[in-house]
Amino acid sequence: MYIMALNCGSSSLKYQIFDADSKKQVVGGNVEKIGSPDSFITQKYPDGTKQKKEVPMKNHNDALGVVMGMLRDASVDMNEIRGVGHRVVMGGSKFASSVEITDEVMREIQNWRDLMPLHIPASLMGIESARQMLPNATQVAVFDTAFLQTMPESSYRYAIPEAWYKNLGVRRYGFHGTSHLYVSKRAAAMLGKPADKCNLITMHIGSGASGVAIKNGIAVDTTLGMTPTAGLVMGTRPGDVDAGALLYVMEKLKLTPEQMTKHMNKDSGLMGITKCFADRRDVESNRETNPDCKLALEIEVHNVKKYIGAFMAELGHVDALVFTAGVGENDNYLRAKYCEGLEELGIKIDPAKNDKALARLDAGECEISAPDSRVKIFMIPTNEEIVIVEDTIGIMNKTYDANHLKMQYSFAKMNEKQK
Amino acid sequence: MYIMALNCGSSSLKYQIFDADSKKQVVGGNVEKIGSPDSFITQKYPDGTKQKKEVPMKNHNDALGVVMGMLRDASVDMNEIRGVGHRVVMGGSKFASSVEITDEVMREIQNWRDLMPLHIPASLMGIESARQMLPNATQVAVFDTAFLQTMPESSYRYAIPEAWYKNLGVRRYGFHGTSHLYVSKRAAAMLGKPADKCNLITMHIGSGASGVAIKNGIAVDTTLGMTPTAGLVMGTRPGDVDAGALLYVMEKLKLTPEQMTKHMNKDSGLMGITKCFADRRDVESNRETNPDCKLALEIEVHNVKKYIGAFMAELGHVDALVFTAGVGENDNYLRAKYCEGLEELGIKIDPAKNDKALARLDAGECEISAPDSRVKIFMIPTNEEIVIVEDTIGIMNKTYDANHLKMQYSFAKMNEKQK
Repeated sequence: MYIMALNCGSSSLKYQIFDADSKKQVVGGNVEKIGSPDSFITQKYPDGTKQKKEVPMKNHNDALGVVMGMLRDASVDMNEIRGVGHRVVMGGSKFASSVEITDEVMREIQNWRDLMPLHIPASLMGIESARQMLPNATQVAVFDTAFLQTMPESSYRYAIPEAWYKNLGVRRYGFHGTSHLYVSKRAAAMLGKPADKCNLITMHIGSGASGVAIKNGIAVDTTLGMTPTAGLVMGTRPGDVDAGALLYVMEKLKLTPEQMTKHMNKDSGLMGITKCFADRRDVESNRETNPDCKLALEIEVHNVKKYIGAFMAELGHVDALVFTAGVGENDNYLRAKYCEGLEELGIKIDPAKNDKALARLDAGECEISAPDSRVKIFMIPTNEEIVIVEDTIGIMNKTYDANHLKMQYSFAKMNEKQK
Repeated sequence: MYIMALNCGSSSLKYQIFDADSKKQVVGGNVEKIGSPDSFITQKYPDGTKQKKEVPMKNHNDALGVVMGMLRDASVDMNEIRGVGHRVVMGGSKFASSVEITDEVMREIQNWRDLMPLHIPASLMGIESARQMLPNATQVAVFDTAFLQTMPESSYRYAIPEAWYKNLGVRRYGFHGTSHLYVSKRAAAMLGKPADKCNLITMHIGSGASGVAIKNGIAVDTTLGMTPTAGLVMGTRPGDVDAGALLYVMEKLKLTPEQMTKHMNKDSGLMGITKCFADRRDVESNRETNPDCKLALEIEVHNVKKYIGAFMAELGHVDALVFTAGVGENDNYLRAKYCEGLEELGIKIDPAKNDKALARLDAGECEISAPDSRVKIFMIPTNEEIVIVEDTIGIMNKTYDANHLKMQYSFAKMNEKQK
């Protein structure tokens, strides 16, 4: 029996087939440039081999059709795919956990189309297509916002006219919840404590970036907002910025909200400062010679450090600080910078351990703090797919508990044994 | 010889006459509702008596004329007013210190008219009128942004398209700088250390609110942005809010930038959440019975606490946390809430000392931390006027040093003697 994890982006589709028993990946791949004439699919096998095929795919329905053909080529029996877990970027206030997809669920997701005009239609078409192509599979939605629904009102409300909250749903939702959930479970295992006894700061830093403050195992605050442009500095998104200043820019340059939204999503962040790089690897490799790159990193580090402090104040006591995602897992330079000067707050990195903890060189999860660091510092490679698979199986078997603290995720024990 | 401190708001004018030698106030007052038919002036004398007069004043020129008449009534010899220190809300990147006002300075201030369409014209008219009515007085501009000009680029730059910074001056400037400067000097005196050896977090919390991180005596970060709507939750301004969410609201409700700017200035903050109160005293007195008031305070406290943590992370080591302005000086309930749970970070308030430290009951500056608090906590009544007077006298006497660390402010010793 197989479980499929499906992630439809605005012009991409990522898929992975897992064996339901072993939770090991059987095959997976990406479709890119959906909607362009030069769209293509790359399928990857566990032995490392890849297969690439250029096929014009005008939408996510076409793309999933091509995926099905590729899976048949890889001898995956379609009838054995009994569950599909869909990553859905936005669940609003309605979904605090993963759910089986019904027409009602589809309608709820549909409500966020205007807020996320590129992502929500892609997700909905992916789900619709999967329901048609795999009619016997249970379809499950795993929301990027679900883990963060435990935030108290003092964290998620903005001090704006209340009507905007009540009528338009303007509040902090956050994103990357599935990743934060995964690393929080792993951090608890590494601390050797039950999750509900752990206070954590989890920093998911990649092209997108967010931090979450976790108190007694549940999320109490996050850096991202209602949209994915707030909080930390990202590749092309600004993180926190004075909204009044943007209104001034709109007035001066006669920009519409739509145009400003585009600038916030595509031309800001590291790209905005450096004018040419959105990828931290590029920014870093030019930091000695290009003053804009140096500055971009300083702004980013400054911002991350402030949120670490803010979350420490919010939590009062912190057991561990966790770094994950592209940068968090692989960038020893930035990790060291984020922690620099925080010794008095109880955060002290071990330079040698930090330099070795590189997921790209196959380092697994590990502690990178100095022995006398009051707060443990962990590097934990994230694994959103395993959450999607576990949630999907749980919902199929009716063993899923909407309260994730009561959910016996096997991955929280699995890796532990491997150590 | 007298020095006048003049503060022109959008529809108000505050003035105070000081004796240049003793630095004691001789007389002062407020003009309110400038531009309305029911505008009036209230003059206050050191013995506590007040004199109120209703006079229609169509602009700040009229208002200053009325002030002059009232001063004559109070037997102030106009020829003895040798210096006028004007509080100017915005100095941009041009002014890192107080300056004598020239036509060039006027033109620089003029540049910020579009950003602050209510304040800048009022300031300029106030200056122009004072130059005409007191032609023999030295006119000095004391900028609300000057003390914050030492912030490093990593603090003041936003991760937005660089052209907006270069062409439109979009960056963090902050405000309330004169207040933060004053309390930082007093805090250094209270710590018994030179200002340039002190790391401080100064929280100016009133109807407007801002925090500043001070490293070795100079400002390195602040909560306010390019506009006074960012950072901490204020009476009618929101503090930090996801700019992307506001763009969504603008799109949905078809709001222009001008309309949204008005909402950010008039209908947000405590007013936005409670729907009826902008004043914390009202919000607090209703907190037991009105859930919106309870929530508004929780959001505000949450926000202040996060910034205390953020600045601690940024500074690495903090000598003292300072509360000032209306709430900071008088609200023992909120001060206790701001510090609650920060014990592990080294901040521990002394409840009895805190309850007694109320400026409205004539408490002077004092320490309110517990003996075992690693970070000292101070309540310091602010005094922007004394900085305005000292800077004006300094510029008149050519003893003023643009580097405030080298400036021998007499107030930093004066109060010390009174203790």
